[in-house]
Amino acid sequence: VSATRQRMFGAHRADIGARPGTLRLPPDSPAPRIRLVQYDSSGVQSEEVADLSRLRDRTRAPGSTTWIDVRGLGDESVLRALGEVFALHPLALEDAVNIPQRAKSALYAEHQLLVARTPLVANGSLSLPQVCLILGPDYLITFQERAFGFFDAVRERIQAGIGPIREQGPSYLAYALLDVLVDRFYPVLQDLDETLGEVEERLVEGNAPASLLGKIHSARRQLVNLRRVIRPQCDMLRGLIQLPSPFISDEVRTFLRDVDDHAVQIADRVDSARELASEVAELHLSQLSHRTNEVMKVLTLMASIFIPLSFIAGVYGMNFDYMPELHSPIGYFVALGIMATVALGLLAFFWRRGWLGSPED
Amino acid sequence: VSATRQRMFGAHRADIGARPGTLRLPPDSPAPRIRLVQYDSSGVQSEEVADLSRLRDRTRAPGSTTWIDVRGLGDESVLRALGEVFALHPLALEDAVNIPQRAKSALYAEHQLLVARTPLVANGSLSLPQVCLILGPDYLITFQERAFGFFDAVRERIQAGIGPIREQGPSYLAYALLDVLVDRFYPVLQDLDETLGEVEERLVEGNAPASLLGKIHSARRQLVNLRRVIRPQCDMLRGLIQLPSPFISDEVRTFLRDVDDHAVQIADRVDSARELASEVAELHLSQLSHRTNEVMKVLTLMASIFIPLSFIAGVYGMNFDYMPELHSPIGYFVALGIMATVALGLLAFFWRRGWLGSPED
Amino acid sequence: VSATRQRMFGAHRADIGARPGTLRLPPDSPAPRIRLVQYDSSGVQSEEVADLSRLRDRTRAPGSTTWIDVRGLGDESVLRALGEVFALHPLALEDAVNIPQRAKSALYAEHQLLVARTPLVANGSLSLPQVCLILGPDYLITFQERAFGFFDAVRERIQAGIGPIREQGPSYLAYALLDVLVDRFYPVLQDLDETLGEVEERLVEGNAPASLLGKIHSARRQLVNLRRVIRPQCDMLRGLIQLPSPFISDEVRTFLRDVDDHAVQIADRVDSARELASEVAELHLSQLSHRTNEVMKVLTLMASIFIPLSFIAGVYGMNFDYMPELHSPIGYFVALGIMATVALGLLAFFWRRGWLGSPED
Amino acid sequence: VSATRQRMFGAHRADIGARPGTLRLPPDSPAPRIRLVQYDSSGVQSEEVADLSRLRDRTRAPGSTTWIDVRGLGDESVLRALGEVFALHPLALEDAVNIPQRAKSALYAEHQLLVARTPLVANGSLSLPQVCLILGPDYLITFQERAFGFFDAVRERIQAGIGPIREQGPSYLAYALLDVLVDRFYPVLQDLDETLGEVEERLVEGNAPASLLGKIHSARRQLVNLRRVIRPQCDMLRGLIQLPSPFISDEVRTFLRDVDDHAVQIADRVDSARELASEVAELHLSQLSHRTNEVMKVLTLMASIFIPLSFIAGVYGMNFDYMPELHSPIGYFVALGIMATVALGLLAFFWRRGWLGSPED
Amino acid sequence: VSATRQRMFGAHRADIGARPGTLRLPPDSPAPRIRLVQYDSSGVQSEEVADLSRLRDRTRAPGSTTWIDVRGLGDESVLRALGEVFALHPLALEDAVNIPQRAKSALYAEHQLLVARTPLVANGSLSLPQVCLILGPDYLITFQERAFGFFDAVRERIQAGIGPIREQGPSYLAYALLDVLVDRFYPVLQDLDETLGEVEERLVEGNAPASLLGKIHSARRQLVNLRRVIRPQCDMLRGLIQLPSPFISDEVRTFLRDVDDHAVQIADRVDSARELASEVAELHLSQLSHRTNEVMKVLTLMASIFIPLSFIAGVYGMNFDYMPELHSPIGYFVALGIMATVALGLLAFFWRRGWLGSPED
Repeated sequence: VSATRQRMFGAHRADIGARPGTLRLPPDSPAPRIRLVQYDSSGVQSEEVADLSRLRDRTRAPGSTTWIDVRGLGDESVLRALGEVFALHPLALEDAVNIPQRAKSALYAEHQLLVARTPLVANGSLSLPQVCLILGPDYLITFQERAFGFFDAVRERIQAGIGPIREQGPSYLAYALLDVLVDRFYPVLQDLDETLGEVEERLVEGNAPASLLGKIHSARRQLVNLRRVIRPQCDMLRGLIQLPSPFISDEVRTFLRDVDDHAVQIADRVDSARELASEVAELHLSQLSHRTNEVMKVLTLMASIFIPLSFIAGVYGMNFDYMPELHSPIGYFVALGIMATVALGLLAFFWRRGWLGSPED
Repeated sequence: VSATRQRMFGAHRADIGARPGTLRLPPDSPAPRIRLVQYDSSGVQSEEVADLSRLRDRTRAPGSTTWIDVRGLGDESVLRALGEVFALHPLALEDAVNIPQRAKSALYAEHQLLVARTPLVANGSLSLPQVCLILGPDYLITFQERAFGFFDAVRERIQAGIGPIREQGPSYLAYALLDVLVDRFYPVLQDLDETLGEVEERLVEGNAPASLLGKIHSARRQLVNLRRVIRPQCDMLRGLIQLPSPFISDEVRTFLRDVDDHAVQIADRVDSARELASEVAELHLSQLSHRTNEVMKVLTLMASIFIPLSFIAGVYGMNFDYMPELHSPIGYFVALGIMATVALGLLAFFWRRGWLGSPED
Repeated sequence: VSATRQRMFGAHRADIGARPGTLRLPPDSPAPRIRLVQYDSSGVQSEEVADLSRLRDRTRAPGSTTWIDVRGLGDESVLRALGEVFALHPLALEDAVNIPQRAKSALYAEHQLLVARTPLVANGSLSLPQVCLILGPDYLITFQERAFGFFDAVRERIQAGIGPIREQGPSYLAYALLDVLVDRFYPVLQDLDETLGEVEERLVEGNAPASLLGKIHSARRQLVNLRRVIRPQCDMLRGLIQLPSPFISDEVRTFLRDVDDHAVQIADRVDSARELASEVAELHLSQLSHRTNEVMKVLTLMASIFIPLSFIAGVYGMNFDYMPELHSPIGYFVALGIMATVALGLLAFFWRRGWLGSPED
Repeated sequence: VSATRQRMFGAHRADIGARPGTLRLPPDSPAPRIRLVQYDSSGVQSEEVADLSRLRDRTRAPGSTTWIDVRGLGDESVLRALGEVFALHPLALEDAVNIPQRAKSALYAEHQLLVARTPLVANGSLSLPQVCLILGPDYLITFQERAFGFFDAVRERIQAGIGPIREQGPSYLAYALLDVLVDRFYPVLQDLDETLGEVEERLVEGNAPASLLGKIHSARRQLVNLRRVIRPQCDMLRGLIQLPSPFISDEVRTFLRDVDDHAVQIADRVDSARELASEVAELHLSQLSHRTNEVMKVLTLMASIFIPLSFIAGVYGMNFDYMPELHSPIGYFVALGIMATVALGLLAFFWRRGWLGSPED
Repeated sequence: VSATRQRMFGAHRADIGARPGTLRLPPDSPAPRIRLVQYDSSGVQSEEVADLSRLRDRTRAPGSTTWIDVRGLGDESVLRALGEVFALHPLALEDAVNIPQRAKSALYAEHQLLVARTPLVANGSLSLPQVCLILGPDYLITFQERAFGFFDAVRERIQAGIGPIREQGPSYLAYALLDVLVDRFYPVLQDLDETLGEVEERLVEGNAPASLLGKIHSARRQLVNLRRVIRPQCDMLRGLIQLPSPFISDEVRTFLRDVDDHAVQIADRVDSARELASEVAELHLSQLSHRTNEVMKVLTLMASIFIPLSFIAGVYGMNFDYMPELHSPIGYFVALGIMATVALGLLAFFWRRGWLGSPED
């Protein structure tokens, strides 16, 4: 579990007191692979760039949009070279490659930094990898820790020219990518909803195995993490919509409003799911108490009835020489009668207390 | 339960990365049936429209209001055609037909989109279907997932010309519909109040069957969902009142203030009911603990008194050849006396601890 | 309990979809009785008005204040007639007579509507009836569901001319009435405080009968309801102080600030009382757990010591022909010795665990 | 406890509907004793004033500051006379002597009213008496319910001329007094911290006597009350700093900022202590559950092992004429062997479940 | 634990009513050691200053930055002398050396006071010592209670001239130091995360020794304290960024925004960790309940089956002269048969209740 935790956000901060702008690269990130996609309304060029000087020399056709997709953060020299090519602010570059960050938007003179997170379910465990976007006047650079493939659908839309994506500039591309990152929360929430629903159903049926505890807890844990991630994302999106920025057109703002609506909806659902999970946990606890109560009743009933009877039997099992009852011909039957009376009296007592009712009721 | 969950909000998001404006229609929604209601102070025309070209050709009499009520979202072509007739913004149309949305108001150049939810109790289970309104200068379009019949009373008011509804434009109609959607929360809350009240009454009477757990939990679950829906609705209504919009007259704003008052009151009651439900759940748990305590006391009393007595009887049931007490003529009675003494001593001990008091007290 | 709930706020909303301005009268409210009080600094006239035309014809002496006190809302025609006499806005009249409302202030062109609630303890159960005030330039109309008598003290002050009340206009009268309504919360809170204090005292003394559960829960329930009522009242009063209104003079604002201080103080006390009640409930639960623990210890002690001893006795009660120990002359005493040893060993074991300490400690 | 409650805030509101400005004096407050302290940078005069006309006649030297310290509120005529001498606003006088008030600042034309509370530990119980300050252009009047002696240190500073207090006007004096009132919270918090720390220590050592319950609860109760008092005090101080007032100089504002910092720090510490106390209460509950679990394990172990063994012994203690095993020469030893086998089997079963591990672990 | 508490924040407030500006020095702080670091882009001078007159006489080269690092607060005369040299405001000096303070920023005419805290783990226990910075136009004074060595890395960066630190003025230095203080929270949080992760893992494995209680509680306690410290720090940093100050350049504001992002991220993580810790504590409690339930089931099973059987054996162990069954040749076997029937019946009963299922399930 501890290992899962670390994977969930990454944890490679170090070097307290290091000078600002230091690149603290994620230790297990592969070497960067860089894809260059250049498009305008008339066409698309897409290629993997091995040599960064290739980027430096590219001619930027006016009106065209350049998308640099960096997958892997394992080589500082490549990242610094990229920073030089696009004249990135040192703090922007630091934030873009240092994992983990809080979702945020930071406006610099030459470009705007956006940091977001999105859920990723791999091998049944949830992580929340970070994606950074640097939005310039005619380019967009995206940084991913590994080649996650989040953006494949958007790249295909660009290739195929579906919708207005090729007519619009880099801020529309940023919108499209943010939309993907936010929409990825939906299926995760759906799964959590279903897990909680199942647990609930089993609990309401009165079925509370110990393994449910782990399931409930795991859901609550994921919800705590989702909430930690989605709330700052809402703030970031609201900031994008409301604060002036030279890199985002008014038209794209309308679209971002839509992404923000989704993010807020997700945050609401996370909160509701958390409340529900907490109530399911309480339900579980109540059910356990109820069961213990039922078990106790059975024990008390059996023990309270038979222990006194056994005592009576024990008395007449004593070996004293002089015990007058033993020699009476009806002694045995009187003793049995007393036992029956005691048993019936106790049953009546428990009946009056309602302990003999159906335990399901 | 899981099935109920899905029905509660619908859950058919898909196609992450699809281009914006994509219509993701609810999978089990019937084909749209469209009713056209056109009215002014002098009269009303109402008809089911099968052919959309009929809408295109209608003459909009100046001063008259057109209400298009779309029930069912199962056919994309019809919806797109409608969007063309009224020149709806792609995002507005997407939001209007994509289920689920968060309650919101979005202002476009040509019209204003309103999304609301209202409770619906069918077959004893609560769902919260969504209704979208698109408010234009002289028309109002409403989208429902199925023909719910929420608006029948308003249509009858228009037909019968009760009140000022025919004198006012489409924003007053929107107000009347929102008023209906909000007022529908009251009976649901009333039912929840009564359920909680019943549970409470039974608990205070000391009657805590396991089935109450399910009832409490179901109420809390519904309250979580109601809250998730009503809070954004309050925000949406407050926005309608405060933010400028060319489609809403000042007079209608006064009326919307009234709807907002109701929505806030409902939100308050939902919150109070949630607090109450949480306290009822705690009361239940306390009662279970109290009962377990009572059961334990009985068991402890019976076992603690008779186990030592049985032991004494057991000692004199041993078959040793040489046990001097056994041959004493008063041995048996002395043994009985010792047992009585032990029993009384233990009773006195428990009495001092207050364990013999009436368990009801 | 469910009945109490309904009485607490009233619950007669109906007719979803009815046109706005519909008067939904409380079903069990008596017919209105109307008292007219007219006063200025020189004198007072007070009379019960049976015929509303009497109100229409009254001459409003300049500088005099008219107070119409409507007790009972059971006759729509009377209320509508009153609305006509004073030219009340339909929504204002609707809000004034429709029960229940949230505390609020609504400013209309001709008058201002104020809705407040105040606690009423009758037959040992708490309700929170609503009072509406409509404040005009030279009149104040008050609506009560029944003749509650909340305002008797103020009427007597007017009659007797105590203080500046006759020199001031209707807004000062509204202030005096709101002051009464808010001050009525104090004794209710006092009673709740005392109830909680008593429960606390008994719990700290270690005295936790099941009946305390009901007391704690009833206090928490009342506090939930008080909070639901007092918070909007604070908002309403703050609005009166801060928002401009032609009907409230600056001097009266100073006095309203005082009422608001009281309302905020009450809200604070309700919150503190709720926290305290929640802690008392937790204390109760802890005490129950502690007691169960104590009971268990006694049972475990008794059973763990005597069950092994009984077993030993049982062994030598067996009837095998060949059991060598039985024939030893010291067999019996050795057996007793073994039993004593086992018992002492177990006592030592429990002693080491600290289970033999005084259970009070 | 209930008595403590009433002392904690006082509770002598009455006369609902009385006219504003009514003095509702605390019922058990002694008759006012009034001390007059007059000082400027050159000297100090201090005297007990028996005759209020003495105040009326005093000559106010220009530049000198007059401090009237009223201890005891038991005589309305004295208080009204004082109000006349200084021309106090009726509401200000009412608020100054009516107990209890919420901490607040109210600005009148001629003076400013400040209400604060401070903790007082007497006979081991905490109360939070109220102190009111009326700050005029050249005087400060302080009202205390009894002669508490909170201000002795400040009076001595004035007498001895320590620091700039004699050079500054009445607002600096007000600052000095508020500083004292706020600083008095520190030792109370310190004590609560230590109490909680002790309880914690004992709990972590596994030592959970029932008496801890009372200690935890008492700490939580005090914290609820401290919070209720300190939060409004922070608001009041912030108001003093931010809102314009003719009676408070900018220099004194800088000092008040310091008092506000302290008050906010205290509020933070109260909140943290409350969270800690709540966690300590949970820890206690968990420990109780853990102990019950341990006790149960021992009981189950002992009972589950010996009850079957006793049964076997019981079987061979039966007196049937024909029981073949009884006559076998090895019968006894076989029976013992079977018992040993059963016992070992059960031990193995419990061992596998981990119930035989050290209970401390 | 109580001792730890006091160390966590220090607790040497005293002298209520003392005049403002009084230096209340931490009682166990060593005598101040003062290091003077003077640097500009061309070079660095660093020395320990024993004689304060040395500070007075230093020539401040234009454009150079002076950093006075005071470690130890044990000598009032030295601190006062320092205050004179730099003309520090009395309240600033008081706040700088009085422990404890809340994180804050206070702007004076000649300088700005910054108070921050940072975690320090020594001997396995967490404390949160305070560091004060006084930022002037060309100097920065730092006050530490002891020589903590937090700033060694920064001093080395100045010595080595790494990064732009020597080109920038004292506000950049303040930024660098604040950055260090904030970054020190990360490893502490990491450790807490790991502790909680471990506890979680053990709980999910069903392993809940009592010692976990202490671990969870200690983590929650530390989180309460971290939260109390980091939230005001965020406020302080936000204030630095947003409020105008002559001592902080716009360029440094950009860097401070980065520190603020980190502080907010830490606060978020503390909150998430607190939620997680609270859920882990609930999980623990649920697991305890579940285990108690399991233990109870075993006890109930064993006792309920064997107690009735023992009773039957007891009956036939009675010594009555006339018990017909005893003399039947098949009596013994019939008795055994009855016992077997009873046992099987009870097993069937428990089987139907599902109590015989695998307890792990």
